[in-house]
Amino acid sequence: MKKKALWGGALMLTSVIGIAQAAEWQALPLKAPEPAGNPSTPAKVELGKILYHDPRLSSTGTISCASCHNTMYGGEDNRGGSVGVHGKVGGRSSPTVWNSAFNSVQFWDGRAASLEAQAKGPVTNPIEMGMKSWDDVVARLKQIPGYTQAFATAFGGAADAALTADNAANAIAAYERTLITPNSAYDKFATGDKTALTEQQQRGLQTFAEVGCTTCHSGPVFNGPQLPEGTGFFMKFPTYENGALEAQYNFSADQGRYEATKNDADRHMYKVPTLRNIALTAPYFHNGKISTLQDAVAVMAKAQLDKTLTPEQINDIVAFLNGLTGEFPKQEMPRLPAYPNKTFSYD
Amino acid sequence: MKKKALWGGALMLTSVIGIAQAAEWQALPLKAPEPAGNPSTPAKVELGKILYHDPRLSSTGTISCASCHNTMYGGEDNRGGSVGVHGKVGGRSSPTVWNSAFNSVQFWDGRAASLEAQAKGPVTNPIEMGMKSWDDVVARLKQIPGYTQAFATAFGGAADAALTADNAANAIAAYERTLITPNSAYDKFATGDKTALTEQQQRGLQTFAEVGCTTCHSGPVFNGPQLPEGTGFFMKFPTYENGALEAQYNFSADQGRYEATKNDADRHMYKVPTLRNIALTAPYFHNGKISTLQDAVAVMAKAQLDKTLTPEQINDIVAFLNGLTGEFPKQEMPRLPAYPNKTFSYD
Repeated sequence: MKKKALWGGALMLTSVIGIAQAAEWQALPLKAPEPAGNPSTPAKVELGKILYHDPRLSSTGTISCASCHNTMYGGEDNRGGSVGVHGKVGGRSSPTVWNSAFNSVQFWDGRAASLEAQAKGPVTNPIEMGMKSWDDVVARLKQIPGYTQAFATAFGGAADAALTADNAANAIAAYERTLITPNSAYDKFATGDKTALTEQQQRGLQTFAEVGCTTCHSGPVFNGPQLPEGTGFFMKFPTYENGALEAQYNFSADQGRYEATKNDADRHMYKVPTLRNIALTAPYFHNGKISTLQDAVAVMAKAQLDKTLTPEQINDIVAFLNGLTGEFPKQEMPRLPAYPNKTFSYD
Repeated sequence: MKKKALWGGALMLTSVIGIAQAAEWQALPLKAPEPAGNPSTPAKVELGKILYHDPRLSSTGTISCASCHNTMYGGEDNRGGSVGVHGKVGGRSSPTVWNSAFNSVQFWDGRAASLEAQAKGPVTNPIEMGMKSWDDVVARLKQIPGYTQAFATAFGGAADAALTADNAANAIAAYERTLITPNSAYDKFATGDKTALTEQQQRGLQTFAEVGCTTCHSGPVFNGPQLPEGTGFFMKFPTYENGALEAQYNFSADQGRYEATKNDADRHMYKVPTLRNIALTAPYFHNGKISTLQDAVAVMAKAQLDKTLTPEQINDIVAFLNGLTGEFPKQEMPRLPAYPNKTFSYD
């Protein structure tokens, strides 16, 4: 209870959707939860890493999952709209893959209830990886001997039978569950090292809680309460109407979750995104219209809390948010299995 | 001399450009030559690996050197024309970066005399990485604290002064000199393990020499004699006029080295490319119009030697060429240096 006492009343918040939550400062778990239907194994993770980095999963042979969710950096592409096959630009900014295993739903609009479901989406999206169907993906992969072997090893059964769209998604999700960035300055602070955050960062943390950011960005991942997978923690953005912000950033052109559900109650609702490694993932917001973290903090306070922060408050919060940059696990580059003597017919 | 005796007369060839060469079967050197002006160091190699994989060296923030020269696979992109910024497609097939340190000139037309010179080209090519100038690249990199530090460590001097276009190219070239794939079945065979190649592969090797492939594809890298860097070993392609091949593959639309030099003697001249890892780098030839290695062998024999090979000869040579797939060194994924709280203004 020491931590709670330290941070006083700001730590017990009631979210606007009515879920009572203890906003103690919690460190990032070192392991992500796994669904019963897809327990992780080293063979599955290794296969997932290969698939994740293989551009042969796109119609042009040029785009892999890693193209827009680059694990060498912040887990995304630092662009407003991501670029898919044939230079097509998407309307939303790629969310980070780092720590995505701790999201209870996936995509900005939460339309995928799991990492497994998410993994299947971009591959057949015409402006992302552009494959006509997962049948086409499977047919392509089955021509690569290393893949039939790797699927059989990871999932058991006859070589050809193991190579399915579901298992490809299972393997990619298992790999993504390893993409966790612990030991940020904040995590060290939360687990007892009170010198891990600078004075300014500690001021920023307190301001972050006091002005109300933790209403939504709560929990160890700063993406809301850790709900069962598929539940989703959604908030309206913008919450407060603001003509000036709208004129400048055009936030409301995107209908948010409504675009997926066509349910009026979902208009402008978005999954609350994690703030971990947020210093590395500019530009910000669903449409990537905000270039700097300073602006992101100021605009969020205005749009979601109807508050105008002072420059000092903004600087302090930004300093604190920089303390959420974690340690990235070392990764060996995968070798993509050979398709000897031939190539596919790409767009 | 034992190897020479084994393979008889086919091993002493006189190349068509008059350089007498002993075409003994030679293993790949384990280390690439380094120019006096750019000795390799671990810090330089590490910086080069980072730069090589950083898409922030492109105007859109989406294309890195690795996009078209993917070291997770055969060192290129398995496409006929490579895809640059805004989905633009180039007219030539990306050559492999693996073992490119053993080319005496770079690019299909040999217009770069060194890896250092090559590394600067694609970054400012409007259909490749699309940067307006190297000054713009340097200005961008100077905003990333991890880069100023890494350049200073690798090249010495004041932090900002070390970050130059020349040093970026030097670092990338130093990294590329580590991309060597030794210990292929062929290399084991060449160094004494006579069981390393199958009987069919040994037949293929003999046929490869007897029909004349070694006239050009000689030496340990199968790209001609190892000449001093910048010299270049060029051949005309196609050597023999063949209306049927031309109608099908349109080889002569590209003027080859002439496009770079505007010298008539260079019309349809190309650098002789390595055959190492050739099984992994379909499609084939400068314009990537040949999808399979079988067709590549048949067409080369016809276009360069005016010979029609039997299906058995083709299969044997293809089997031998598959014996040129080497061992790829393990690589740790680089961490791209942070540009905290901000992003660049991309196209």
